[in-house]
Amino acid sequence: MPKPVQFHFDFSSPYGYLAAQKIEPLAAKYGRAVDWRPMLLGVAFKVAGTQPLTSIPLKGEYTRRDLPRSARFHGVEFRMPSKFPIPTQAPARIVLWQREVDPGGCAGLVSALYRAYFVDDRDISDPDIAADVAAQAGASREGARAAIDDPAIKDALKREVDGAIAKGVFGPPFVFVDDEPFWGLDRFDQIGRWLAGGAF
Amino acid sequence: MPKPVQFHFDFSSPYGYLAAQKIEPLAAKYGRAVDWRPMLLGVAFKVAGTQPLTSIPLKGEYTRRDLPRSARFHGVEFRMPSKFPIPTQAPARIVLWQREVDPGGCAGLVSALYRAYFVDDRDISDPDIAADVAAQAGASREGARAAIDDPAIKDALKREVDGAIAKGVFGPPFVFVDDEPFWGLDRFDQIGRWLAGGAF
Repeated sequence: MPKPVQFHFDFSSPYGYLAAQKIEPLAAKYGRAVDWRPMLLGVAFKVAGTQPLTSIPLKGEYTRRDLPRSARFHGVEFRMPSKFPIPTQAPARIVLWQREVDPGGCAGLVSALYRAYFVDDRDISDPDIAADVAAQAGASREGARAAIDDPAIKDALKREVDGAIAKGVFGPPFVFVDDEPFWGLDRFDQIGRWLAGGAF
Repeated sequence: MPKPVQFHFDFSSPYGYLAAQKIEPLAAKYGRAVDWRPMLLGVAFKVAGTQPLTSIPLKGEYTRRDLPRSARFHGVEFRMPSKFPIPTQAPARIVLWQREVDPGGCAGLVSALYRAYFVDDRDISDPDIAADVAAQAGASREGARAAIDDPAIKDALKREVDGAIAKGVFGPPFVFVDDEPFWGLDRFDQIGRWLAGGAF
């Protein structure tokens, strides 16, 4: 059985959202599962000395034009949230909890949380809203809500973020196929070729 | 006759080099010419508060891996130059001069200068080397060499850079199809769709 494709993402990343809609069918095409790895973009920004795309002069204006266009290009529903960016500890912790209790539920949970934010404009940084969305995706609402305040899950998220940065992850979405790193939805064509035929 | 596709580039940009090998066939497929617009990346970096990719922690290491892989993916010869980055006033001024004396020679000239730097590891920031390369591409060596020190061409390059930034160009390669902006080789798939069918 080949190794799952590791998908590092942050719930506040619009390009991460677009990529999250694409990674599972791409991996499945080549018989791979997806290992969903939530991260905290702000920590990576500090390490790499960067900042949210939309705050950078010129680049920000371009990004606000490129995002809806890229969503249309990829056939993914998208609406820029009214509150952006947001801290994403709450939904990230729910995903780590889901990974422990039933990893098979991660794909649906991630998709539901991302769509709540980038389609329905719901503020998933709010623990109660995040837990509501998790429940709508089929998880236990109580379990999800408790996970957000669980010290063990909090520590697990810290380790997750540190581990990602130690592996060179500087921004979401970031994918590893075996040990090969690919940054961005813009590398999904290269990921496809790598999955199909190995190193090139 | 549809408007030429505007291609903004800097001779020190490796992704600009890869894109420069791809833009002419892509534009030609849809009956468009290419308008070659040299820029100075350093000025855009100052405006956008960014820095060369290879200098950014984590992102720099990734980029050094992604560049040769992307070159292989796109079937373009590539070798990271031993001196990088370089100031690119000399080759940029030669292109502006070429545009005045014979715009039809720009594509071959840009390709020759880029390949001298990113394939043959020649330091095209050196005015004499840049003029040698221009001569090999069919231009007048004296004309090219003189253009580098010509105050009118120097002013033209300043206007060119200011004009690009005023239009929102923050990094090369940057393409306009009519008035629609596309940043990066990573948007060439979207450029193709736009050229084929208009706005989407």
